[in-house]
Amino acid sequence: MEERMQKQLRFFLEADRLKKIYRQNYLEDGSRKENDAEHSWHLSLMCLLFFEHGLEQEKMDILRVLKMVITHDLVEIEAGDTYCYDEVENTGKAGREKRAADKLFSLLPPDQEQEFRALWDEFEEKNTPEARFAAALDRFQPLTLNYRSAGKSWQEHQISSRQVWQRNSRIAEGSPALWDLAKSMIEDAVNKGYLREE
Amino acid sequence: MEERMQKQLRFFLEADRLKKIYRQNYLEDGSRKENDAEHSWHLSLMCLLFFEHGLEQEKMDILRVLKMVITHDLVEIEAGDTYCYDEVENTGKAGREKRAADKLFSLLPPDQEQEFRALWDEFEEKNTPEARFAAALDRFQPLTLNYRSAGKSWQEHQISSRQVWQRNSRIAEGSPALWDLAKSMIEDAVNKGYLREE
Repeated sequence: MEERMQKQLRFFLEADRLKKIYRQNYLEDGSRKENDAEHSWHLSLMCLLFFEHGLEQEKMDILRVLKMVITHDLVEIEAGDTYCYDEVENTGKAGREKRAADKLFSLLPPDQEQEFRALWDEFEEKNTPEARFAAALDRFQPLTLNYRSAGKSWQEHQISSRQVWQRNSRIAEGSPALWDLAKSMIEDAVNKGYLREE
Repeated sequence: MEERMQKQLRFFLEADRLKKIYRQNYLEDGSRKENDAEHSWHLSLMCLLFFEHGLEQEKMDILRVLKMVITHDLVEIEAGDTYCYDEVENTGKAGREKRAADKLFSLLPPDQEQEFRALWDEFEEKNTPEARFAAALDRFQPLTLNYRSAGKSWQEHQISSRQVWQRNSRIAEGSPALWDLAKSMIEDAVNKGYLREE
């Protein structure tokens, strides 16, 4: 087998590990926690469903959004999932994930290494409408699952409404329409006692 | 909330159930079976990795391949997973999945219902290079996981090399390069006793 294909095959097999990186949020029915592969697939489906609600939809390339959401969590194969509300863990996150990206993407043939790295950098930097929309999906999805599972994960970690408002308000940068939806869920979560008020 | 967005949100929540539809193949390390959401994500990543190995790559629209692999198994939310080597179950599969598609996609706003249904029909009919490439990925992925997990699922179901040759030879219609790889895996699986010869 030629070296190029060997590298692609190796990367495809390494990627299987994303199915074993578990997140803090539960599935919609609260039955178990979700993993990164499921989460990434759900974002790609949301991209197809909600693309029209992107803030700068007419300027956006849907293919790049899809590529970003499919690949955005791959670094967690090496770096692990960092819970968004864990302040201590988040201090070291950027450096940890950069080292993980260097290691993981170096398995690819050079042109694909460059492409996957550029997609990940774009997602992290949020300087394009595509990256801001992808990031909005990445927040809206677990928020919705947390809300639907009656705040199970929020309660486990004693998360307050202030923390949820703060983290999710950035959804507006990618999709004001999804942010409107998110706001009504957060308000209802407080009313229903899923989320402790602060 | 306007009706259109309500329908999109409802569909996005229904789709969460794909994470609980388990397939017969195991993860690469044999630790547990894979579900449809993980499988669909893995195909979307493979599409990015292996697109250049598509038989009619220069004619193919990568965006349509991605849309197909992201949505191709959604009908299994209603119809369940049908094991590819179960002849009895496969007799009723087409009708069962068509009814499931009618029901599931009717949750969407009309234009998206039409788009998702057209993607699923295209994938099932295999009359376009994009659909044949998507179908090649859909066969190559579980074949590789079965091979890497030392044939665990093949042995559980007493699958023979003849069955595996027969099912997977269609990979060639979408990607001769992936079929070359697949052949060497099947031969090695027989040599190693992962797969019983027939």
